[in-house]
Amino acid sequence: MSESDHIAAAPPAAPPQDSTPNEVMDEETRLRPEFVNKVLDAVEAGDDETARQLVQPLHPADVADLIELARADEREGLVKALAGIVSPDVLAELNDYVREDLLDELEPQQVADIAGQLDTDDAVALIEDLGRDEQQAVLERMEPDDRAAVEEALSYPEESAGRLMQRDLCAVPEHWNVGQVIDYLRSTKDLPDDFWEVFVVNPSHHPVGTCKLSLILRMPRKTLVSDIMQREQTLIPVDMDQEDVGLRFQKYALVSAAVVDENGRIVGMITVDDIVHIIQQEAGEDITLLSGAGEGDINEPIQMTVRTRVVWLVINLGATICSASVVGAFQGEIRRYAILAALMPIVSALGGNAGTQTLAVVVRALATNQLTSANTAWMLFREFRIAIANGIALGIVGALGSFMVLHDLKLSLVFAMALVINSLVAGLVGVLVPLTLDKARIDPAVSSAVFVTTMTDVMGFFSFLGLAALILTR
Amino acid sequence: MSESDHIAAAPPAAPPQDSTPNEVMDEETRLRPEFVNKVLDAVEAGDDETARQLVQPLHPADVADLIELARADEREGLVKALAGIVSPDVLAELNDYVREDLLDELEPQQVADIAGQLDTDDAVALIEDLGRDEQQAVLERMEPDDRAAVEEALSYPEESAGRLMQRDLCAVPEHWNVGQVIDYLRSTKDLPDDFWEVFVVNPSHHPVGTCKLSLILRMPRKTLVSDIMQREQTLIPVDMDQEDVGLRFQKYALVSAAVVDENGRIVGMITVDDIVHIIQQEAGEDITLLSGAGEGDINEPIQMTVRTRVVWLVINLGATICSASVVGAFQGEIRRYAILAALMPIVSALGGNAGTQTLAVVVRALATNQLTSANTAWMLFREFRIAIANGIALGIVGALGSFMVLHDLKLSLVFAMALVINSLVAGLVGVLVPLTLDKARIDPAVSSAVFVTTMTDVMGFFSFLGLAALILTR
Repeated sequence: MSESDHIAAAPPAAPPQDSTPNEVMDEETRLRPEFVNKVLDAVEAGDDETARQLVQPLHPADVADLIELARADEREGLVKALAGIVSPDVLAELNDYVREDLLDELEPQQVADIAGQLDTDDAVALIEDLGRDEQQAVLERMEPDDRAAVEEALSYPEESAGRLMQRDLCAVPEHWNVGQVIDYLRSTKDLPDDFWEVFVVNPSHHPVGTCKLSLILRMPRKTLVSDIMQREQTLIPVDMDQEDVGLRFQKYALVSAAVVDENGRIVGMITVDDIVHIIQQEAGEDITLLSGAGEGDINEPIQMTVRTRVVWLVINLGATICSASVVGAFQGEIRRYAILAALMPIVSALGGNAGTQTLAVVVRALATNQLTSANTAWMLFREFRIAIANGIALGIVGALGSFMVLHDLKLSLVFAMALVINSLVAGLVGVLVPLTLDKARIDPAVSSAVFVTTMTDVMGFFSFLGLAALILTR
Repeated sequence: MSESDHIAAAPPAAPPQDSTPNEVMDEETRLRPEFVNKVLDAVEAGDDETARQLVQPLHPADVADLIELARADEREGLVKALAGIVSPDVLAELNDYVREDLLDELEPQQVADIAGQLDTDDAVALIEDLGRDEQQAVLERMEPDDRAAVEEALSYPEESAGRLMQRDLCAVPEHWNVGQVIDYLRSTKDLPDDFWEVFVVNPSHHPVGTCKLSLILRMPRKTLVSDIMQREQTLIPVDMDQEDVGLRFQKYALVSAAVVDENGRIVGMITVDDIVHIIQQEAGEDITLLSGAGEGDINEPIQMTVRTRVVWLVINLGATICSASVVGAFQGEIRRYAILAALMPIVSALGGNAGTQTLAVVVRALATNQLTSANTAWMLFREFRIAIANGIALGIVGALGSFMVLHDLKLSLVFAMALVINSLVAGLVGVLVPLTLDKARIDPAVSSAVFVTTMTDVMGFFSFLGLAALILTR
């Protein structure tokens, strides 16, 4: 029955059983606060049975959400009440910090048991954040097979493909036919839970092609695998950074990919469901990085958050002192012409805004590989033209506005000129700062903003007060 | 042969044929500028043959990248030289604006032919951005079947599941067994190119379960589908916004999902490869939205970019005039104590920084559904404590620093107090502004920043100059 059959007349019937009933979940797949409170109230009242009944039908990802939405001091009680429902899968779905807190309450043997029930990649995620001693204690209590897999994964750098991959995969020799593959799949127990493609390997275990399961299902049993496999394949080096893995999956619309060691031999596979949250996280964290809030995880211990943010604030304090010293040099002008003090923050603020606009676009284009050295010059020219257009527009609006209020033609002219100059500065540094940092292999999202706003502040104050000194107050 | 067999001794051999040779692509899967220039130089020299030979081995996604990396005025020549290589799949991979430019050069019949060779979702993406008349002209020239599919998709709102889904899918009745499913798959031509799960439907075409292909392959032919299907399933309403579709795929680690109409009947399916770039895009665009640079697409026509950015700059100009008027009210104090003019931008800038840090974290937490009304109060309290800690740290550093330079105890005290006050203001508005906008169903990423920085500017100037007026200059 193909899809077109479905469109044919069919009697209306009850809507399907969606796994997310409406009293529990809103239309954006968030747990409703009423539901969260109902569960937490039941736990607080000691009525574990009600709490369990409410939570039982939820998907592990939603149970994890529920635990995250509880206050830190409510979580332990909640997890105790839900014993049995808080499965290893729930723990795998939990935010790193929340999970770490919960694991701290468990014995190494319990953690080892949980890890043993997870896929290698999830077990690694569980164990990698533990302290060195605790990690060792847990590893010692795991089954030898599982332990070896986790230890191998941990031997690869953090955030690398080696940590993300599953070691279990389905690989077949090229001389097999479809029937042999199907028989092999039916008879072999030791296969991953989820796989979507079969990897075809040569005798020295190098992947030579991939074959979608849908193709295997649809071809006659006698078809040779090597006749239907796709030979162009995207291989993932085991030490590749997870951000680059994510970009490859996205670019080539991959559902799974073979991971190969430095000799090109297949050592594991990564499936798209393991990488989707990394794509989301890597794409999303630039916004908090750029603001100077680090990774911005709301479950991070508050001391860590304060430390991350205060470092950037103090760096910014230093930077603003630079620009303040520019103002300090013009105290004579300001004393004579105090209105300058009111207008100068406008010039610096608008420069900062324009610079941040450019910066955000460039950081984004760099992160998505849209901006490379092949089109840098074009990008710079593009932002230069935008800066001129914006600067002229702001200059006109600023000149007219200030003249209407202050009736000082010279002052309005100085104001407009400073706006144009600072818009140009903003456009140039907004492109050049992140590009330079990127070339120096420093993440431009982390460190660009302070450079850009310092430049626009300094140049904003300097151009405005300098022009004022030249034209108005001499 | 399971993965553990691979680990067994194997003779070293030549590395596998990766589809991305090193002279073409760098380690971050970007086309090397030397390669891009080689192709463009060949095209410019009229040597189409060389250009074609260079580009032939590339994946369609990389051909699309190549076209995007060329300058706008080089693209038409490049595409002409690569005729035949620039397949419908390449067009589907192209940036919207670049594709639109290229399609403008084609006759409606040519566009119709291209659309006919694509999956419905890609054909829709191709056609939805065309002008109304052009769209009509293309649709009229398409095959009736394809046309009906595209027109149906276009009847759903922009950026909804209905536009993303494929109408072709594989659905089977619950009473079938595995053997019947395999025979059906082998004998039916009209199936999607890629599918990873079979949807099980009841007689009225409501999905009742899903069955992974790997499970179908591994079970004996006599097994009933209804015995092995997964009954908990995540269904996607056809009018669901693509951002929410992306969040569902990510949350539940889906590889494909059935799309249902308002009566719960299956009307299509969405596969993860169609949604990965949307997850990336939705997660990434908040950074440019928050900066006031719109979607920040570097291929957007420059007039559109200028318009988007200048609107935000002018709004910001208005906002900074508010804060400038606060400064204006204290001109008397500034005239007497010009150093105030140098210190006040520090107070407002640090407030702006702290506010932006909080804002970025809150916008991110809202976008990822980590912040809901269930934990709003906790979040506010968390940011309040961070703001106090940061404010005190900044106050101490600021007081010491300013005292060392200016030797004015009272001034340093005023400066420190203003820093603490503005840090608190920043923390509060950084949480409350985006939450309020979100409640009002306005995208907080788009409009929060101007409110937050205006508040921190106004309060920064007011607290500092006000305290100065009270303590220093009276």
